[in-house]
Formats: sequence, structure tokens, C-alpha cells
Amino acid sequence: MFEQNFKVMDKINEISKLGEFGLIDKLTSGFEIKNSSTKKGIGDDAAVLNYEKKQTVVTTDLLIEGVHFNLAYVPLKHLGYKSVAVNLSDICAMNAVPKQITVSIAVSNRFSVVALEELYEGIKLACKFYSVDLIGGDTTSSSKGLLISVTAIGEADADKIVYRNTAKVNDLICVSGNLGGAYAGLQLLERENEIFKHNPKMQPNLSEYNYIVGRQLKPEARTDIVKLLDGINILPTSMIDISDGLSSELFHICKQSGVGCKIFEDKIPIDEQTKLFASELSIVPAIFAMNGGEDYELLFTVKQEEFGKIEPLQDISIIGHTVKDKETKALITKDGKSVRIEAQGWSSFQ
Amino acid sequence: MFEQNFKVMDKINEISKLGEFGLIDKLTSGFEIKNSSTKKGIGDDAAVLNYEKKQTVVTTDLLIEGVHFNLAYVPLKHLGYKSVAVNLSDICAMNAVPKQITVSIAVSNRFSVVALEELYEGIKLACKFYSVDLIGGDTTSSSKGLLISVTAIGEADADKIVYRNTAKVNDLICVSGNLGGAYAGLQLLERENEIFKHNPKMQPNLSEYNYIVGRQLKPEARTDIVKLLDGINILPTSMIDISDGLSSELFHICKQSGVGCKIFEDKIPIDEQTKLFASELSIVPAIFAMNGGEDYELLFTVKQEEFGKIEPLQDISIIGHTVKDKETKALITKDGKSVRIEAQGWSSFQ
Repeated sequence: MFEQNFKVMDKINEISKLGEFGLIDKLTSGFEIKNSSTKKGIGDDAAVLNYEKKQTVVTTDLLIEGVHFNLAYVPLKHLGYKSVAVNLSDICAMNAVPKQITVSIAVSNRFSVVALEELYEGIKLACKFYSVDLIGGDTTSSSKGLLISVTAIGEADADKIVYRNTAKVNDLICVSGNLGGAYAGLQLLERENEIFKHNPKMQPNLSEYNYIVGRQLKPEARTDIVKLLDGINILPTSMIDISDGLSSELFHICKQSGVGCKIFEDKIPIDEQTKLFASELSIVPAIFAMNGGEDYELLFTVKQEEFGKIEPLQDISIIGHTVKDKETKALITKDGKSVRIEAQGWSSFQ
Repeated sequence: MFEQNFKVMDKINEISKLGEFGLIDKLTSGFEIKNSSTKKGIGDDAAVLNYEKKQTVVTTDLLIEGVHFNLAYVPLKHLGYKSVAVNLSDICAMNAVPKQITVSIAVSNRFSVVALEELYEGIKLACKFYSVDLIGGDTTSSSKGLLISVTAIGEADADKIVYRNTAKVNDLICVSGNLGGAYAGLQLLERENEIFKHNPKMQPNLSEYNYIVGRQLKPEARTDIVKLLDGINILPTSMIDISDGLSSELFHICKQSGVGCKIFEDKIPIDEQTKLFASELSIVPAIFAMNGGEDYELLFTVKQEEFGKIEPLQDISIIGHTVKDKETKALITKDGKSVRIEAQGWSSFQ
């Protein structure tokens, strides 16, 4: 894995020969339009969409080489997939259904057309998996590295959209999936990359930790959770996706909703591999969950009376509840102590 | 002008102290929501829009320091304004009305908060002037330079949207405003910047060429032309905005519509300052118009029977007509010669 990007990039740069339009044609061939709301995709000054009676939901993200990803251990195909998934995750966090994306890239002359095709293979895979249409973008050169800017667009009925600022006192706090795995995977990949840099003949054996590596390299947007909740007639009172760590997202919901929260360490869902790797580093696994990032699970609140519906769901954990006192942000540890939660989410500026 | 960005940037970097959310709050304060279609702007996982019976039009552009702009002579406020205007221009080219934008920026630690505030002042000015709402974006650090990614969203009735691929044979070819000025302005600014680099005490006197400098630094999206045509009941048969030079845009319309074109050098609208600067460089001014870029005027076709309505309009020039033979792409020069047009538009990959 550690070498494959370099193989791909070890080609004569032929982008300038193709030109911008030739490159766009090449990269976007094979993408199909799947949604009836897409009236016109790539090929004009702008795309045309028709949402009729639905509301439109829009989000955008920048991913920058050296800040958000390291091509030494992130395969380009995974990067393409992830760039899409993390944006769709924001659409899910509004309880909406993603329908379209635009993808803009800036690339230095270090990248070959084949390398960019790898990237777009991943983007195409994500478009297929999530049934979203690639409707536009921009392709340009950069003076350094690779940059990806994705805008995702989705739809929802007006009365189904869920915001961050509408949690009520004594709501149940829930998360989907498990937390901390993506951050554990990142720590592992960075460690193995350091070893590789010092000894390039040493290929990492990541099979023991394939799950957490996958959590880092190929996160999924939880469109299935949006569908699941809708299927059992639960409309969350508030929702956010976990991109910067549980503590940071809890802070957003609490601050915007004007409530506090109390969560329980033993209720935080953590995978066995995450625990194993944390113990290898002598770190309490909950720290990965609280302060790590990139799990792209959904954090949401529901009314207490929904307990009976939520509790049996395998892929959703009730980790605590909101409280009236805005100042209270408590993590109750396994030994019963109350620890104040600090928002230590990841920031690109630190 | 040549020094002001450096003054602004000559500050201790305090972005990391503010953090991403503090920075976003600071930069986006004072932006007002003006459009009823904006249900939720900045502050959640995604923005929420409601277009009801209209269709939605979406476009996106990347602007990269060292590729698309040079901060040695582009003031940050102008850059902010231009980043918005060039995207709105694409919305106009669909015959639609721009309503919302997202703006993402990546900045290296060379930039101070004050510098970014300058940039956002320009973005705010454009939002005010065009009545568009800033509804989201992403703010991150970059390893080098400044990068701006804008997505613009607009609306139009389904039967009013104008594409590139619908020009018919014998349509009149029209352009708004005048062409070549932005490219002339760029050449002038680059020349003066070179002089300044060799002799920093030498401040450029650009007053003689204030118009073409303005065309380069502060282009406008022709929302007024969309309104004007609608007011006299003209629906163009095809339309595109002129970002890469007239010849390149003519090629797009001809190729996608399956027609040829014949245009007349003496009909191409060129401002006096553009002519003057071209003569200083011993260049035929039409070359600036054909192969320069960034004028952001509209190139469109109308049915021949609209001649009577179009001809009296001061700000629109009829420069030629489409022809049946797809292979014909002719420029008829002032002395009556027919020259084959080549698509030599600007490309960031060259």
C-alpha cells in the first residue's frame, strides 16, 4: 500500500497535453446520472436541478494534501471515495438524502493522468454506492500538492430536516456505529509510515488492525441510519455528524440548543480493535472517541419516550442525556467519577 | 496598491488562537440573509434552501494563488469580490438569477486575520451588490498560499434556462459589454509589477488605464443583461459567459450546438483603453478579445427575427451569425479576409 501511489505518479505528466476540457472528459467518463432531480449535469456553465416540493440541503468541504491527508499511506482511490463520503455525511446530519455532488481538484505537475483517474475511480465508486450524481466541478493546476473541494446537495421534506439547535432538556443522546476507530487507524498508519520511512524494505503488517485502518481510509456516510430512523418513525430532535470527535460535536449541539449533557463512558460504543490499539499505546479508548475525529457517525438526540424504539437497535447506542444546566458537560467514567468534557476536536489550524 | 497586501499580512498570525469556528464567526459577521429561498445559512452541517417551483442552478470554481491571481498586485478585497462575481457569471450564463454562495478558503500561516477580513469585505460587497446570501463554506490551513473555492446557486423557471447546446443555424451571435479589457489590464499589471520588483521605489501610474485595470481586478457578473433580455421578452437560443476568451467560448457553443460561426472583427466591441494599450504593445486589439480571458461578458445567440429588438441596445453588440457548416469558424477581418478561428483560450495547465 505504501508504494502504490508513487508507482501511479511515476509517469510522465501528460495533463497539459490533454488540456482542461480533455482532462475533465477523461475523468468524468462512465459517471451516470441516477436521480430525476438532476436535469443537467456536467457540460454547461452550471448544472440544473429540480427539487420540486422538497427542500435543498447544501454543504461543502475542502481536503488538502499535507493537512487532511498524506498520500504516503492514503491510496488515491480511497481518497476519492472518502472526499465524497465526508460531504454526504453532512447531508445525513441534516436528516436529508444526498443527491448530487460537485468535485473540484487542483493538482501540481507531480500528478499523472493515471493518478487522477485513480482518484476519480474512488469518486465514481462513492457515487454508485450512495446513488449520487456528479454534476460539475473545476479542474486546475496548483503550485503544490493536491486539493479537493466537494460540494454536496441533498433533499428532504421541510418538516423532516433536523438542525443542531433543537435538542430539548432530558432528551436521550445517541450515536450510530462505534467511535474512535478512525483516529486509532490514523495513529497506526502514521506510526507504520514512520517505520517505513526509516526502513523502506519493511512493509507494514496491518491485518490485525484491518478494521480501524478501514475506518480511517474508507469511512461511510450513514445514509442507512437516516433511512432506519425514518422507517421506525423517529425524527431526532437534533443531529450532527461526528467529524471532529464526540466532545466537539456534543459542544455544538449543547451550545446551539442551550442545554447541557451527561454521557457515560461505559455506554460509548468502541470496537475491539480500537480498544486493543489503545491499550498498545496505554491510552484509555474513550479518549480516541472523545477527541479523535473522522468517524463520520451520527450524533443525535431523541425524546425520552423513544427509548423503547431505540434501545433494541444494534447499530445505535444511547450514551447519555441532555440536562437543563447549560454549564454541565459531564462524562461519567466507568468508576463513577464525573469529568468535565472539554472540546478538543481536531483543527487544521493547530 | 502594490504594497498594501504586504502591510496587511505583516502581522502576527493569530488565526490559530481564534480556531476554525472563531475565525468563521469573525469573517462571516455582518453578512445578512436577503433571499426568501435561504431557510438556513451558516451554522449547521449544511445550509437549507427552498426553491419551490423554480429550478436550481449550481456552479463551482477554484481560484488559486500563483495560478489565478497574484497578490503582488491584486488587493485582497478585490479578490474576494472577483471570486464571487466570476461564479455568479456562470449562473447568469444559464439565464438564471444567483441567490446563494458557499465560500471555502485554505490559507497558509502567512495570512493574518486582518488579511482574511479584507478578503471577506470584498465577498460581502459582492453579496450586497448582487443580493446573494453566503450560506456556508469551509476554512482550513494550507501548506502554501491562498485558495478560494466558491459554489454559486441560482434559480430560474424551467422554461427560461438557456444552455450552450441549443443554438440554431443562422442565429445572431451577440456579446454584452466590451471584450479584451480584462486581459489588457492583466498584461499592464504584470508589466508594472515587473518594473516594481526591479525598483520598489517606482510606484506605477495606472490612471491612464484605470478602466482596463478595473476590468481585470473587479469584473462584474452581467445579472443586468439577464434582466434586460427578460424585460424585452428575448430568450437567447444559447448562452455562455466569456471567461476564457471569445474564440474558446464560440467553440463551446458551436461544438455543443452542432453549428459553425462567422463573426466580424469590426463588430467586436473593444474599449478605447484596450485599443490604446494594444497599440502600445503593437498587437491587434481583436487578439485580446479573441484569446484573452476574464471579461465575464455574456456570449449568446438569438433568432434572426430579434434583430430589431437587439440592435438598438447600447450594451449589446451583434458580432456575427451561426452557419450550417460545422467546420466553418470564421473571423472576417476589417480588410475582408476570412481567418479561421482557433480556440486558444486560457488554460491553467499551460
